[in-house]
Amino acid sequence: MTIRAVVWGENIHERTNEVVAALYPEGMHTTIAKALNADKAISASTATLEQPEHGLPADRLAETDVLVWWGHKDHGAVADEIVERVARRVWAPCTLKWREAGERERLWVTSPSHPIAEGVGEYFELENEEMYGEQFAVPEPLETVFISWFQGGEVFRSGLTYRRGAGNVFYFRPGHETYPTYHDANVHKVLRNAVKWAHNPQGTKSAILEAPNVPVEKALEPIVERGGKLHASGEAGFR
Amino acid sequence: MTIRAVVWGENIHERTNEVVAALYPEGMHTTIAKALNADKAISASTATLEQPEHGLPADRLAETDVLVWWGHKDHGAVADEIVERVARRVWAPCTLKWREAGERERLWVTSPSHPIAEGVGEYFELENEEMYGEQFAVPEPLETVFISWFQGGEVFRSGLTYRRGAGNVFYFRPGHETYPTYHDANVHKVLRNAVKWAHNPQGTKSAILEAPNVPVEKALEPIVERGGKLHASGEAGFR
Amino acid sequence: MTIRAVVWGENIHERTNEVVAALYPEGMHTTIAKALNADKAISASTATLEQPEHGLPADRLAETDVLVWWGHKDHGAVADEIVERVARRVWAPCTLKWREAGERERLWVTSPSHPIAEGVGEYFELENEEMYGEQFAVPEPLETVFISWFQGGEVFRSGLTYRRGAGNVFYFRPGHETYPTYHDANVHKVLRNAVKWAHNPQGTKSAILEAPNVPVEKALEPIVERGGKLHASGEAGFR
Amino acid sequence: MTIRAVVWGENIHERTNEVVAALYPEGMHTTIAKALNADKAISASTATLEQPEHGLPADRLAETDVLVWWGHKDHGAVADEIVERVARRVWAPCTLKWREAGERERLWVTSPSHPIAEGVGEYFELENEEMYGEQFAVPEPLETVFISWFQGGEVFRSGLTYRRGAGNVFYFRPGHETYPTYHDANVHKVLRNAVKWAHNPQGTKSAILEAPNVPVEKALEPIVERGGKLHASGEAGFR
Repeated sequence: MTIRAVVWGENIHERTNEVVAALYPEGMHTTIAKALNADKAISASTATLEQPEHGLPADRLAETDVLVWWGHKDHGAVADEIVERVARRVWAPCTLKWREAGERERLWVTSPSHPIAEGVGEYFELENEEMYGEQFAVPEPLETVFISWFQGGEVFRSGLTYRRGAGNVFYFRPGHETYPTYHDANVHKVLRNAVKWAHNPQGTKSAILEAPNVPVEKALEPIVERGGKLHASGEAGFR
Repeated sequence: MTIRAVVWGENIHERTNEVVAALYPEGMHTTIAKALNADKAISASTATLEQPEHGLPADRLAETDVLVWWGHKDHGAVADEIVERVARRVWAPCTLKWREAGERERLWVTSPSHPIAEGVGEYFELENEEMYGEQFAVPEPLETVFISWFQGGEVFRSGLTYRRGAGNVFYFRPGHETYPTYHDANVHKVLRNAVKWAHNPQGTKSAILEAPNVPVEKALEPIVERGGKLHASGEAGFR
Repeated sequence: MTIRAVVWGENIHERTNEVVAALYPEGMHTTIAKALNADKAISASTATLEQPEHGLPADRLAETDVLVWWGHKDHGAVADEIVERVARRVWAPCTLKWREAGERERLWVTSPSHPIAEGVGEYFELENEEMYGEQFAVPEPLETVFISWFQGGEVFRSGLTYRRGAGNVFYFRPGHETYPTYHDANVHKVLRNAVKWAHNPQGTKSAILEAPNVPVEKALEPIVERGGKLHASGEAGFR
Repeated sequence: MTIRAVVWGENIHERTNEVVAALYPEGMHTTIAKALNADKAISASTATLEQPEHGLPADRLAETDVLVWWGHKDHGAVADEIVERVARRVWAPCTLKWREAGERERLWVTSPSHPIAEGVGEYFELENEEMYGEQFAVPEPLETVFISWFQGGEVFRSGLTYRRGAGNVFYFRPGHETYPTYHDANVHKVLRNAVKWAHNPQGTKSAILEAPNVPVEKALEPIVERGGKLHASGEAGFR
């Protein structure tokens, strides 16, 4: 079965910068699409920012197996609606199942040496809980700390850690407004452990969200500037 | 050093639902904050949706070490500006360094058996490239496939895989408009490999982005409904 | 291209236990191999413990694309020589490159909020070091903390974390006997950070390396025993 | 609470090589231990290969919170008994729980787009199975594909992927000799999927398990040899 690929390109510099236009007269997206089509298993076409709906109408996206994305100069020009459409296409599976029946949940510790599981024992029970069932469409975590067993037959990854930038992120499932979960001593223990684990004592770095242009003369190893340029020396770059 | 935690709560059901109000007369956020304050290493306060700036003005967020987030009924009511503010606080480190000097980049294969590295050899070189340098503030990847050596002294994780929902995501660094990167045979090879790897032959699941309510009578194991409820049987739930 | 699979089975219970022999008269390995051969892309054969070299002579292993392993009763009966042979087959790639030339190494921090990188800055340099170059055949780490740039053109993942059982493991590359690496202040800082990170304050669990048999009458949910059995109630099981 | 660290060193080159002895007259292990002791939270002592039991008798290891390991020249000289002792200390938690009661197991797919889960649906059931319960002391996997729900109240990560060297490894839990698991159509489907996923079409690399010494004159970037040396040019190095 042929893989239907769409190579998306901004197609800005190819039309506005002479050096780039000379290198890629058909646009980088076309060059890339041709490289893909050299493999018979792939059928690649192109789409660009300036086309209606950026070349990604819903029916075309639905028939796209792989989307190759090239952006640099103007990420902000991509319409929110199209961003949302692409994201939904990628995230397509069901997110989770749920049931509000006050059933028993048993949270098993799967990473017993993890600081968040400290003092919790092998498992703990919540006698009345809302069921959340797999498939839970989240990124593969750094570590799985708790997995829940539900009386009605489902399982759920109930304690997951992630690191994102300067942030340590912990997802904790338990808690439904109509049940006394947040009065439970084990839940309290986990929350305290989680706060301590999430705390990053190094705090915020000064260069917040910057992407600094390192001048050639300040390179750590001596180099000589070569080739065409988009940016003047010391320029901030695209933001 | 005390960990400064802010427990954020929607505080909607506590004010509008009798069962919830009876269980949590001060709000779940207050119950959770008290549980945290039982540990002397933590100093927890609260913030809620209905406060100005949702209780998270910039100066308060800057002095917050750990943010505990509880949301359920109305995620959409959180102002985009505050979402952005929190995200920036989490992502605080520098994103990457760059330099446009046409220097040599050598991409080393760090996961030689990965399908994306098939046929590439131990490394390949791009004689003229833009430098991208660590620290690169991305989530820890599923696998690191390429790491770049730059002539000026930097390194960069140039090939990273992620799985997100139904999507297999590959980040590939090389390519600057003013250099002939996309005419390079090794780059072509990697792009073809990447498209084949990213292709998910299972396609889109039908239950796209739904979170189905599983009725009690259809539970996989027999259970009896107990406790208070927010939702009527068969209701779709909060979207 | 057909995938050549070998289904390896202990083939002990099939010959010594009546219940098992009745269920799998040809052995579980044969049942599994037949299931695999139902797919034309796979060509599966079998091997068993009691055969010479456990059915895995070197030339056969060399022509095996996928090895399916089933063991339960007597892992210890597999000869060390064959274990080593299989492990080498799996680990086949080159482990690392090296060169002893006193060249410059620059260690970049790739996970700046990680406790092991605390206080180190964006990078640090070792003016004289042995080169270690990718491909480094280690398991994908929990997190990559340092990546090294070498003067001679190589890169190396120089700081890697793993969690194994109760142990937090940190691999740190720098250090060659003939260079003063262990007199370096940054190396000292990393070593102290690493010891603190690796420390597991929860200590050793009491049930060291046991795999307890949970009696039916002590199951957390009421169940009734069904089906054939290998073990008497309360038996320790295979060790 | 002070962290009790033991710095283990081979202590061979410090006694046999003049360059190394001049750099580290007390041995590298002592230099490292002193660097650790500069932090009051750490109390570091040393142990070396030539001591009885390599300086790691059982009672000392039991009182060690963090072990720092330095080896280079003679890994093979470490007695198997001590290797085993250290490994047991690291792996200290319980490995898994089990019960042979023919209870119901329901395997939920947690990574629905993974090739190994193709065609399996949201879950499948095995009416009679042996229970395996968390905590399951395995390394954090690359991806969790199946999680089992057991009738008696336990959960288990039943499908886990790892990449090790050239090998793609899949662990699959189901199957007890006295139950007809390997006659089950879903199990057959998973096994076929797993074989296809595990297959590495790139095969074995030629440089099997070698760690090549890259001569200075063949460095990818021009460098000049500096500093002391352990190895002659072109030597194979320690094996």
